[in-house]
Amino acid sequence: MGLRVRRTPVVELEPEAFGVAGRVSLKLELLQHSGSFKPRGAFNSVLSAGVSGDGLLAASGGNHGLAVAYVARTLGVPAEVFVPASASPVKINRLRSYGATVTVGGDFYADAYAACQQRAAESRALVVHAYDGFATVAGQGTLARELDDQTSAIDTVLVAVGGGGLMGGVASWYLGRARVVAVEPARIPTFAAALSAGGPVDVDVGGVAADSLGARRIGRVGFAAAVAAGVKSVLVTEEAILTARQVLWDELRVAAEAGGATALAALISGAYRPAARERVAVIVCGGNTDPGDLNLIPEA
Amino acid sequence: MGLRVRRTPVVELEPEAFGVAGRVSLKLELLQHSGSFKPRGAFNSVLSAGVSGDGLLAASGGNHGLAVAYVARTLGVPAEVFVPASASPVKINRLRSYGATVTVGGDFYADAYAACQQRAAESRALVVHAYDGFATVAGQGTLARELDDQTSAIDTVLVAVGGGGLMGGVASWYLGRARVVAVEPARIPTFAAALSAGGPVDVDVGGVAADSLGARRIGRVGFAAAVAAGVKSVLVTEEAILTARQVLWDELRVAAEAGGATALAALISGAYRPAARERVAVIVCGGNTDPGDLNLIPEA
Repeated sequence: MGLRVRRTPVVELEPEAFGVAGRVSLKLELLQHSGSFKPRGAFNSVLSAGVSGDGLLAASGGNHGLAVAYVARTLGVPAEVFVPASASPVKINRLRSYGATVTVGGDFYADAYAACQQRAAESRALVVHAYDGFATVAGQGTLARELDDQTSAIDTVLVAVGGGGLMGGVASWYLGRARVVAVEPARIPTFAAALSAGGPVDVDVGGVAADSLGARRIGRVGFAAAVAAGVKSVLVTEEAILTARQVLWDELRVAAEAGGATALAALISGAYRPAARERVAVIVCGGNTDPGDLNLIPEA
Repeated sequence: MGLRVRRTPVVELEPEAFGVAGRVSLKLELLQHSGSFKPRGAFNSVLSAGVSGDGLLAASGGNHGLAVAYVARTLGVPAEVFVPASASPVKINRLRSYGATVTVGGDFYADAYAACQQRAAESRALVVHAYDGFATVAGQGTLARELDDQTSAIDTVLVAVGGGGLMGGVASWYLGRARVVAVEPARIPTFAAALSAGGPVDVDVGGVAADSLGARRIGRVGFAAAVAAGVKSVLVTEEAILTARQVLWDELRVAAEAGGATALAALISGAYRPAARERVAVIVCGGNTDPGDLNLIPEA
């Protein structure tokens, strides 16, 4: 993928950082182009399929839409992104700043998705799926390849799960060499539910991380990859996610979105407890947040 | 200094990032403990002088005060930090969150400084100066030692200047091996004024970066080190600083303070123009900012 994606930095924390055992490194993927890991999969998906002047289509008011708009701009083709009316003006403006056509319609994501499918039927543009495809999952896996090169002897990788594309890619890269732990908001347990049911099933979507981890069900490709790698699910509370997000700001001036802080929440809350010398890598996977509420320090 | 300070990450940008020639790396020192490079010098200064249970004193409503409070907490000694009434409640709360005693008094920094000196005369606590000391400048220089280890063949380092401690340390480390360029807000040209006058002189202090780069005159140690290394001064406008701060957020989700974006402002504004293959390291030196104004994307 050459210079299409940015090699995002890793910071190794001091022992006992955040009062947690083990040696913790953070992969700061929120510094990726468009503010999340999503361009990795989108570039791989689009370049594998072959891109034409007809451009790209996506339905997303979130990180996937931003990534597709960024990819289209980089490749010099048009993009049309369908978003529901609930999409934030900040994200709509950022989509437009990448040169995408933004089509707003309907109250729910399903409406935007239907409009996208309708446009696809009328045009030759390529619909880029957010997570459920081999090229997408493989592209997200380039994050793990980088991480592997940037760190030595990682025992465990903590990764947040929405549609499971990043989890699947990371699990496939580290297969048999590191434990991969899927961290899910308890309110959106797509992977845990699929493990229980023996395959992807719908879950209710809600809570503080829904804007980035709010897939209704896990993708088939990411699920299969995770099961093959023996990935376990750990659930975290809303409060744990918000605490982790604040800790990233207070201790490192890293402004993550709630979904981007979800993997760290497992460590800080004790939902995942590393051994004393365990080397743990935590993926901070996105930063498309309004940082305006981060500077409210509680009275000491 | 072992594990006292955090080894902050470096991100290498893609060619032509921000429309600038050269190959640009950013040293993300805003991820340092307490949100700026200042603990490097403060630790070295305090540990060189020897720390006692009488603790530490500082006059600062800004990054230096936060660093001294952090150092005191880490070493298990008390700290008293004197701040003017104009200090922001956020910074006062953060000082207290580190366990420091915060003494608020007077309208100006000079009042806080006088109160600090008076307390020093009555106690055995150690007054920690913000920038003008050999141990302080040497401590700030550890940033350059790290950067040197993290990058290969840097041609040029861009560093913001307030009191000149960081500039002096960086210039001394790279002596003869890389060009060090001092970037100053045109409204606070402490180094340029000292170069013109043949030594440190007072300047007016104001503008968007005054809260972190607002020294009235450059320190003698940093100035001498910079002159010995042939450091040149480049001035940047208020607008260039604010643009660079916004670019760091828009392109990397890095929430720097104005002073932390000042070195990059020289690149983005063209005040410093690298050659086509020049390898430029830019120090993003602080993030003690209210990030609430970063998400206001202009209409595309």
